[in-house]
Parts: sequence; structure tokens; C-alpha cells
Amino acid sequence: MYALQAAAAGSRLFVITDENVERAWGERILDLLGAASGGDYVLALTPGEGTKSLSKLEVCWNWLAFRGARREDVVVALGGGVVGDLAGFVAATYLRGLSLWQIPTSVLAQVDSSIGGKTAVNLEAGKNLVGSFYQPDFVVIEPGTLATLPEEEYVSGLGEVVKYCLLHGEDLLDVLEKNIDAVRVRDRQIMDDLVRRCVNYKADVVEEDEFDQGRRAVLNLGHTAAHALERTVGYGAISHGSAVALGLLVAVALSEEYLGLEAEVLTRTRRILERLGIPTTIDLPPVESMLAAATRDKKISAGGTGFVGLASLGAPVWGLNVTPARFAAALEVIRA
Amino acid sequence: MYALQAAAAGSRLFVITDENVERAWGERILDLLGAASGGDYVLALTPGEGTKSLSKLEVCWNWLAFRGARREDVVVALGGGVVGDLAGFVAATYLRGLSLWQIPTSVLAQVDSSIGGKTAVNLEAGKNLVGSFYQPDFVVIEPGTLATLPEEEYVSGLGEVVKYCLLHGEDLLDVLEKNIDAVRVRDRQIMDDLVRRCVNYKADVVEEDEFDQGRRAVLNLGHTAAHALERTVGYGAISHGSAVALGLLVAVALSEEYLGLEAEVLTRTRRILERLGIPTTIDLPPVESMLAAATRDKKISAGGTGFVGLASLGAPVWGLNVTPARFAAALEVIRA
Repeated sequence: MYALQAAAAGSRLFVITDENVERAWGERILDLLGAASGGDYVLALTPGEGTKSLSKLEVCWNWLAFRGARREDVVVALGGGVVGDLAGFVAATYLRGLSLWQIPTSVLAQVDSSIGGKTAVNLEAGKNLVGSFYQPDFVVIEPGTLATLPEEEYVSGLGEVVKYCLLHGEDLLDVLEKNIDAVRVRDRQIMDDLVRRCVNYKADVVEEDEFDQGRRAVLNLGHTAAHALERTVGYGAISHGSAVALGLLVAVALSEEYLGLEAEVLTRTRRILERLGIPTTIDLPPVESMLAAATRDKKISAGGTGFVGLASLGAPVWGLNVTPARFAAALEVIRA
Repeated sequence: MYALQAAAAGSRLFVITDENVERAWGERILDLLGAASGGDYVLALTPGEGTKSLSKLEVCWNWLAFRGARREDVVVALGGGVVGDLAGFVAATYLRGLSLWQIPTSVLAQVDSSIGGKTAVNLEAGKNLVGSFYQPDFVVIEPGTLATLPEEEYVSGLGEVVKYCLLHGEDLLDVLEKNIDAVRVRDRQIMDDLVRRCVNYKADVVEEDEFDQGRRAVLNLGHTAAHALERTVGYGAISHGSAVALGLLVAVALSEEYLGLEAEVLTRTRRILERLGIPTTIDLPPVESMLAAATRDKKISAGGTGFVGLASLGAPVWGLNVTPARFAAALEVIRA
């Protein structure tokens, strides 16, 4: 954190967080950030996806204006994916861009959303419709913060970790498999290692394709069915991580058909998810509404980046043209 | 416009404009843009600065969402500075960035705000506090559109033209001086020439300093007092162009003192403004409130980019540290 203190010389820190994170970590992290923040500039929002809204965006902008934030000041996003996405967009747009530091405190934010510069807020018409590409100047990941996550949030966030293991390949999947018990109890050393390797993978992809024109699509593995599920059952009713876990099973099943992926991967992935405590089946919404949601997402048709599958462990492929009928059939693997 | 039609192949055009511009030019410009727009995708907002608000921003985002705009679609900003700034920010942020075309229809937008990629909306706490740097893919300037501008808007917009003449130097100022009568009657040929040369000047500055870290500051000539005036008398009560014209006189007066600018420039600038029909004096608000507003802007102190002055015609200087007492004294040149 000393680098941050130095970087902050002459700047003020405007910390955007949520009430849970502030309660658990606010004081300690503000201490570490040093006197620059003065402790005065902390905005703690209501936890939850509802906070990624235009009304909270306006609260943040007005807060910065009221406090007289200037171009040389810094927005610190301290929290999970919701805080990171929202505060990132605030930093990207206030005075046409303040410096942004990400301090992710959830599994999902540490392995995924804090890396890569995607910022976003939701409209009523859909998730993440408004946003920008805006890279943070620092991402500070302290796996110790995972200790205070609610169990459900911790576990569901592991869905994204499983995604990175499938993308990364046999080696990392093996590390996860052999250490599932340690992961379950949030062992600091193993989480440090896993998070680091997920982050490196993502950073590598994003460096090659910052603006999402090609390879970055692989990070959407499992997300076509996940988004369709979230839309259909409602964003409040299923966490993003849980939806991704289910989506991974659908993507793996379709990969068998379209890319000849070994059948063993589906069994193995399901087993890992079960051992992590992540549900592998769901009371499936009507297939027609799932298809409508997936089509709207433009990811099962040839348009856009297409569907993302795995040719083998560590070998993702994007741009697949999956037929609605086969997509519907693959959904059966997650039906409760 | 043929280039635009070709560029639009496969994309839909979402035209954001205001009701006045739509009435005067909507049909003709949609014709020129071709069938791509279908005529269906036109959002005509209430004219005026009040439209650069968060509530109108939300209207635009929801409009795009409702119409199912996609990454390959285009936002066309058809109108003056308000429409250009707002629609530009909408394009910058919807789906993390759609293609943006600027078709400016006011003097101010043609010579200044459509060029350079600054987009913005206002907060209640101040103008342009939210925005981004986002370059348009095309800027199409048709000086013919100036024919339908209300006289007051046309005339006040010339304040920015005078700014560019002072920045550019003796040559361009001379062109303006010799053609004031033609400019007053909106002579197409002379306006075409003037606008082109202002645009080239600005494009040159912006290319060198896109993100406003240095030289771009010169474009703020006259804007310190202008912003203070707008804030103090109220944005509705004075147009931006008129405020800039008054601000230029203040900047020129201070340039005499700090940079030894010839006294003749002040007389000459005042005379040009008068002949253009732009007020050169104002019922000055209390000097204390002007100072407070200017200090808040951070442009008269050493912080930020400092004050912008002229060492001579065509030789702007930025970063001047102007004392409040001298700033206050210089305001006397515009007191009615």
C-alpha cells in the first residue's frame, strides 16, 4: 500500500464502497491508504446489484461535485463487482476522467471484474448497457478480504474461478481439484495462488484485445446461458456466479457436440462445482423464454461474437453458431 | 454525404437533435443520410442548455435501449453545442461506445464544440462536470445550416470565431475585419472560409494534446471570465458565445499587464465585437462573486492550467498566475 500512499501525494482519495464492506474493512483499508483520504471521503452505498443504477450513479457524481473533486484526485472502488463497475464508470466520466484504483473484496471482483477496464451501470432494459472502457491505475488485491464475505457470495464467486480453470487448462484445473477443501475454508495461500493465476490469464487476454473485438470473447465462456438465466429468473433471484456455474455446464455440453470436447470434462466440471457447494441444477424457466433471452444477447447466432466453447481444456473457441434447438437441448444438463 | 451512406452500410443511424433543428433541417439531412436511418430513429429534444442534463441523458440511453441499438450502430449528433455534447456522451457510453458522427448546425458547434472529442453533460453543481473524451468518426460541417439560426444565436456564436482569430493571428483577424458585413449577413463563402480555418486551428491543437494536458489550454482564451460570468449571472441569462466575447476583452486586458500585449489589440477586439453586434459591456455582477467563481474554476491560480493570455496576436500563453486583485481590476473593461 506504500506505493498507493506515494501515488496519492497531492491528490485526495474518494472511496466508493458498500455498507457491508465498509463495516468489515473500511477502517483498516483507510488506515493503509493513509491520511490522504482524510477518512472524510467515503461513500458507502447499499449492497447489491440494485446499486448499479442510474440513480446511484447520480448520487456518486453529485457527491464528487459537492466535495469539489478535481482532476488530480482519485476514485477508489473498494468492494465487489457492483461497486467496481459503478465506481469505475464514475471515475471514467467525472471531469472526463479521474484516476481510478480498484480494491476488489469479493472473489468475483478479484478474479474477474476488477481487471480489464470494463465499467458499467444497468438500465431497466438490461444489465451493463451503459459503461466505458477505462483502465484503473492500480488494482490492489488482498485475498484476506475474502475472509469476511458471506458464505453464499464466496461460494458463488468460485463459479468464475472454475471458468478460468477451464480456460487456462489442465494444470490449473488440477490445482483447484486437489485443493477444493482448502478453497472451501478460504485458505489464504491457495486462494492467493488461484486468484493470481486467474488475474494473469485475464490480463493476458485483455492486453491482447482491450476493446473486446476478438479474443476477449473467450472470457464469456458460460455467460450466454448465464445471462439468459439471470434475465429469465430475475437478477435478484440468482447470483451472477451461480448463473455462470450453470452456464459453464451448458457451454461444456455444447462443446461436446460442436467441438468434440471429451465427455469427461462435463462430469469433472460438475463434480468440482458440487464439491465447491455450487448448485449444478436449477428449476429451469420455460425454454422459450431462455431462448428469447439468449437470442437477444446475440451470442448464439452468427452475429456478434457468437457462442464460446471449449475444443479441449485450455483451448477456448469463440464465434460458434449454435442453433436454438441444440441450445435448448443443452439446457437439459442443468434441469433440476 | 455519400461517404456517410457507405459508412452506414449495415448500421442503423440513431439521430439525436433538437426540435428547432429538426424542423429546419431534419427532413433534408435525413434524406442525405439515406435510407439507413429509416427516418424512424430520430429523437428531437427540447432546445436549450437545460437539455444537457442527467434526465435527458437517461432519456437518450433508454431510447437506444428501447430501439435495440447495437454496437455496430451509429449515433448522429445533429444540432448545436448542447446536442453535440449530450449525444457525444451518449455515444461514448452506450454499450461502452457506439460510432459517433457530428453534424453541427450552429456557429459555436461548427467552429468549436464538434471538434476535439469533448463530450459532456451538466450537473446542478456545475457545467460539463460529467463527460468523456470521445472522438467522432465523422464531423460533417454544412455552413448552409447557419441560415436558419436565430439571429441572437448566430451573432453570439461569432464570439468563438473572434477567439480563434486572436489565437490564429493577424492574418485571420484581418480576414474577419475586412468581411464583417458579409459575416453579419451570413455570406456562405466567407463563413465557409472562416469556419474551415477555425476548425483547422482547433484540430491542430487537439491532435497535439487530445487529453487536455497542455497546449489545449489555449482554447480556453477568454473562458475564465466567461465561465465566471455564466455562473454568476446564470446560464440561462447569458449565452456562452456572449460570455466568451466579454471574457476575451478581460483576457486581452490582462495580457497587456502580464505579457506586454499592445494596447491596440483591446481597442481592435472591442471594435470587431461591436461591429458584429456582440455586446462588449455588461451589468457586472458583484466582483466578489465573480472572483469566487473564477477561483473555483482554478484557472486564475497557479493550479491547473492557469490563466490563458496573448503575448501577441497568434501567440497564446497559458499557465499564467493572475492575482485576484488584477483579475478584479480587469473586469472593469466590460462594466456597463
